[in-house]
Amino acid sequence: MSIRVTLKQVAAEAGVSFQTVSKVINGNSKVAPETEGRIWRAVRALGYQPDALARNLKSRRSRMLAYSWAPLPPDQPNPILDQFLRSMMQAATRAGYHILPFPHPDEGHNLSPYRDLGHSGRVDGFIISSIKYDDPRIAFLQEQGFPFVAFGRSNPGCEFPFVDVDGAAGLRLATEHLLLRGHRRIAALAWPEESRVGQNRIEGYFEALRAAGLGVREDWIARGEGRVAFGHAATRRWLDGPNRPTALVALNDLMAIGALRAAQERGLRVPDDLAITGFDDVPMAQYLTPPLTTIRQPIWEVGQQVIAILIGILEGSPPTNAHELLQPELVVRASS
Amino acid sequence: MSIRVTLKQVAAEAGVSFQTVSKVINGNSKVAPETEGRIWRAVRALGYQPDALARNLKSRRSRMLAYSWAPLPPDQPNPILDQFLRSMMQAATRAGYHILPFPHPDEGHNLSPYRDLGHSGRVDGFIISSIKYDDPRIAFLQEQGFPFVAFGRSNPGCEFPFVDVDGAAGLRLATEHLLLRGHRRIAALAWPEESRVGQNRIEGYFEALRAAGLGVREDWIARGEGRVAFGHAATRRWLDGPNRPTALVALNDLMAIGALRAAQERGLRVPDDLAITGFDDVPMAQYLTPPLTTIRQPIWEVGQQVIAILIGILEGSPPTNAHELLQPELVVRASS
Repeated sequence: MSIRVTLKQVAAEAGVSFQTVSKVINGNSKVAPETEGRIWRAVRALGYQPDALARNLKSRRSRMLAYSWAPLPPDQPNPILDQFLRSMMQAATRAGYHILPFPHPDEGHNLSPYRDLGHSGRVDGFIISSIKYDDPRIAFLQEQGFPFVAFGRSNPGCEFPFVDVDGAAGLRLATEHLLLRGHRRIAALAWPEESRVGQNRIEGYFEALRAAGLGVREDWIARGEGRVAFGHAATRRWLDGPNRPTALVALNDLMAIGALRAAQERGLRVPDDLAITGFDDVPMAQYLTPPLTTIRQPIWEVGQQVIAILIGILEGSPPTNAHELLQPELVVRASS
Repeated sequence: MSIRVTLKQVAAEAGVSFQTVSKVINGNSKVAPETEGRIWRAVRALGYQPDALARNLKSRRSRMLAYSWAPLPPDQPNPILDQFLRSMMQAATRAGYHILPFPHPDEGHNLSPYRDLGHSGRVDGFIISSIKYDDPRIAFLQEQGFPFVAFGRSNPGCEFPFVDVDGAAGLRLATEHLLLRGHRRIAALAWPEESRVGQNRIEGYFEALRAAGLGVREDWIARGEGRVAFGHAATRRWLDGPNRPTALVALNDLMAIGALRAAQERGLRVPDDLAITGFDDVPMAQYLTPPLTTIRQPIWEVGQQVIAILIGILEGSPPTNAHELLQPELVVRASS
């Protein structure tokens, strides 16, 4: 049984007027820092609660949106985290919400953090990313009725609110750029077929080749994990083999860096002997030798849209289009 | 006036036993997903609140720790954000806390987000980083009595809980490494004198030179913003001038990358004609041509210590040593 502390009691304790306390608490007045400090000390001494917790408890809303991201190996830069978080925070803050990050479960199938955060009332909704085919989080969040928005799509036909970057358009841009430079022998450093993002991106390579009347050659598609070592090994095999490509597109910058190294080790000039493009525009791509042509994703815009859609759902005015597909951009540098 | 909903009412609504509801809500039982879904729907339909908000309101604790980081220009990688956030989240979660990131105020002197978060009861304490001399956040947080821990020190003698990396030790390691390789003409790419982190790091360069009986030459210290362009321009001046150094230490990897480019443009071999070291070990440092020798900070450990100290303060058992100075590590690669 607690007795509700009033603003008047705070004013008496701080030795100032009721009006001064009210102004300070509502943040719309300039008073001497010393006075302000005294008022806040009185607020805490008496346990006065103007506060977000009490208001949120009443409205059954935490105004928190939870986000978790998959950790990358330490030698891999996370090309989007800083900008994506800052964009989401900015959009959320503008609407009176906060972003609550939480540790990524060790295995993707551990859903208990989602269950705990959602059912405890600590968060109002979720942002999920690194979406896979048959992603168990989507089925779970839908089943539990938790509002969420995904950065990324899942299986074709699987219906949920998402924002995504058109990865196929990105690879189409890169491949068309190489075709325009006169290349006809274009290989691809790709991800395994079970990668949802990978399948989306490589589709653009297929489309551009077909549109140019060229066939897809299976021996010019290497699929593996998106690391430097894989890009390096696959490119070496092509360079040492009988059917050497003159250009290659990589589904991320790391594999492109591996390709750069392999070419340089063989004494080849990039782009004259082998043209190379990446995907992501990691901050260091421009400082490589030669600087890397790559595809840049509109990450800031993704963050803004994700939050707009989620808050729309939470506040009962979901946008008419909760399937946003944003266009990436080709950044041409000396490697192509 | 709200009537408290009981677990029994939830059980009746869901058509299951009281025990089943209790187990599901406490997360320690496996029941059929369909049953679980029915229970949680009943929980929400009736407005039953087992929840974190109610518990926290009672204890006047949000169990939230707020953190904000300064944005970097888009062409600069943030070498620590991913690992620092993940380490703090892991340590906080283990102790039942969450990390609440908030947008960095446009200008460092805008303290209102700190005021609002602290006084609203939305957070229990703060983590601050990118600490400057006379950092206004420190005076403000101390004056308001808000618990906080800094990643970084401020003015000598300014007393507050911090964890920091011994930047001087890092530059000492890099300079000693070059001295051992036989270099006697070692320049430094540094930050302006008003940079607190910069002054700390450069001190290690001075110490190592003095210990080797060498004087500090002012014309071999260039001070500017820590970007590639500055490292490039300063190194060019040295290479084109009458007193060419044979090695240089840079206070961050970006300036070292600028130095690499300047040397290569002049047709010099790195490290034979000019040896170069950086600081940070950004994820791409190993993929440069040649790979960059650099200093690696123990960021995971910083995150763990910061949270341990802050939670110690919040829970009334502050550690005996709230001034942690962690040692960085020299990573030798081909550039030196």
